[in-house]
Amino acid sequence: MSRRVATITLNPAYDLVGFTPEIERGEVNLVETTGLHAAGKGINVAKVLKNLGVDVTVGGLLGRENQEGFEQLFDELGLHNRFNVIDGRTRLNIKVTETGGDVTDLNFSGFNVSEENWQRFKQDSLSWLGDFDMVCVSGSLPQGIALDEFTDWMKALRQQCPCVVFDSSRAALDAGLLATPWLVKPNRRELEMWAGRALPEISDIITAAHQLRDQGISHVVISLGAEGALWVNASGAWLAKPPACDIVSTVGAGDSMVGGLIYGLLMGETSEHTLRLATAVAALAVSQSNVGITDRSALAAMMTRVELHSVTEQQ
Amino acid sequence: MSRRVATITLNPAYDLVGFTPEIERGEVNLVETTGLHAAGKGINVAKVLKNLGVDVTVGGLLGRENQEGFEQLFDELGLHNRFNVIDGRTRLNIKVTETGGDVTDLNFSGFNVSEENWQRFKQDSLSWLGDFDMVCVSGSLPQGIALDEFTDWMKALRQQCPCVVFDSSRAALDAGLLATPWLVKPNRRELEMWAGRALPEISDIITAAHQLRDQGISHVVISLGAEGALWVNASGAWLAKPPACDIVSTVGAGDSMVGGLIYGLLMGETSEHTLRLATAVAALAVSQSNVGITDRSALAAMMTRVELHSVTEQQ
Repeated sequence: MSRRVATITLNPAYDLVGFTPEIERGEVNLVETTGLHAAGKGINVAKVLKNLGVDVTVGGLLGRENQEGFEQLFDELGLHNRFNVIDGRTRLNIKVTETGGDVTDLNFSGFNVSEENWQRFKQDSLSWLGDFDMVCVSGSLPQGIALDEFTDWMKALRQQCPCVVFDSSRAALDAGLLATPWLVKPNRRELEMWAGRALPEISDIITAAHQLRDQGISHVVISLGAEGALWVNASGAWLAKPPACDIVSTVGAGDSMVGGLIYGLLMGETSEHTLRLATAVAALAVSQSNVGITDRSALAAMMTRVELHSVTEQQ
Repeated sequence: MSRRVATITLNPAYDLVGFTPEIERGEVNLVETTGLHAAGKGINVAKVLKNLGVDVTVGGLLGRENQEGFEQLFDELGLHNRFNVIDGRTRLNIKVTETGGDVTDLNFSGFNVSEENWQRFKQDSLSWLGDFDMVCVSGSLPQGIALDEFTDWMKALRQQCPCVVFDSSRAALDAGLLATPWLVKPNRRELEMWAGRALPEISDIITAAHQLRDQGISHVVISLGAEGALWVNASGAWLAKPPACDIVSTVGAGDSMVGGLIYGLLMGETSEHTLRLATAVAALAVSQSNVGITDRSALAAMMTRVELHSVTEQQ
């Protein structure tokens, strides 16, 4: 029996979030702790899907020395845990907000994946991911995983599961794209880095999206922040724009969009409906401090406020 | 039977230490993790004493949610653990070194001590600290402990144990001094803050030390960084100066000095010998990345290189 959706996060993190009036470099700064969360892009996607009623399994790599926070989170969210636990500590990302609103991130390195642990993950994950309707691979790579090794794993995964959704950036994005995933969702900046050129206009973005389509990628979705999202697939191209929102936190907005896309595709909705839904889920995410859908009626209301139109004619 | 030394740390911390070329405020900075250590001033003192062969018990407050690293450290060091475990997390201090050598500290707040937990700590600690020859109270106060509550506890402790060694700063220093500890070891800046005036000359520092002596404090030791330390007690006043050292890390140098002072006093050594020893222990601490004495012969050699003279005649 098919088991719906799995999300893979190879480089999860604990987010330690705090506030200080102003960071003084070279000095001792007292920071008010506002939160410590087990986090990861694939886990955010899973949370959104679970909120929408989809059975989700999460996997990837976790450090043995500080896994408790993740296990607790998976229990709370009702996610099936297939993470591979390896020696070392999952990394810690420090996020300090100053009075002016500036956020400084200090992303500390975590575990280093040994060749043995990578081989074990590869073998294990490929033994069960084939059972799923869709597999979402999100985020960066930890130290120790070579880019070509990642490409090979993605290719093997693609053979087992035709519907691989991929969301990453920089070198990891390039390496994963070589395996021709089914759907990719870079943001504008990530797409520009992949394309190696600025993409100032929507028409430039559509051109770059078609480049990805020409490589065999079925669905190319570009998230555009407050401007919404663009989707190019075999049936056409659409641009969705959310209403103006008060921004509480943009953390996880992209992951929320991926969750919405997977949900719509899984339910066999049209591209238009799915993009409207995904844009609304992302808009709700920026209006709250966390990802997740707590109110289905708020989502329905947000969907009606998304402006959507076909942009195929602009080609 | 007397049980030698106990050290109390009410506000321990995990130190997360890392390196990044340059911290860019408002940006995402990748930091190479160089260490994560369970730490606390009283625990540093205990480590030094244990290395010198003294049986030490450690106590204070630890957060339930992340106590493992401390329990592991106490096991490794062979310290008796009498910490009170309370709800919440022990705080985390982030230390990021840049290429230029500047260190930025981000000290995140940890557990907030409830009235109930404070009363429990007070009752528990006073039930066993009276059995010790010397009790060392080190460091800052966590959120939730009122200054007058701390003074009251210190006074009660002083009644049970005449030899209370105290090392703190700012408001906690002022509050603890009201209980007339037996020995205090502020550094120059802490003494200046207590005195409310700059103390540029050694003679100014001696005057301020005598102010503390006049309050009933038997031993006043002022640590002076590379200039060494000054000790004023009933028998006289001495200044010890260590040889010039390559500084690896000044973390824990003051705690190392406190450990050396306690050791000398416990062994009934003269003030001169004890100050020479304490200055040498601190000098060794700055020559290594961590506190602790791994080589007794290096300590003996360092002691011969400490310059010591009486400064009583300067009064």
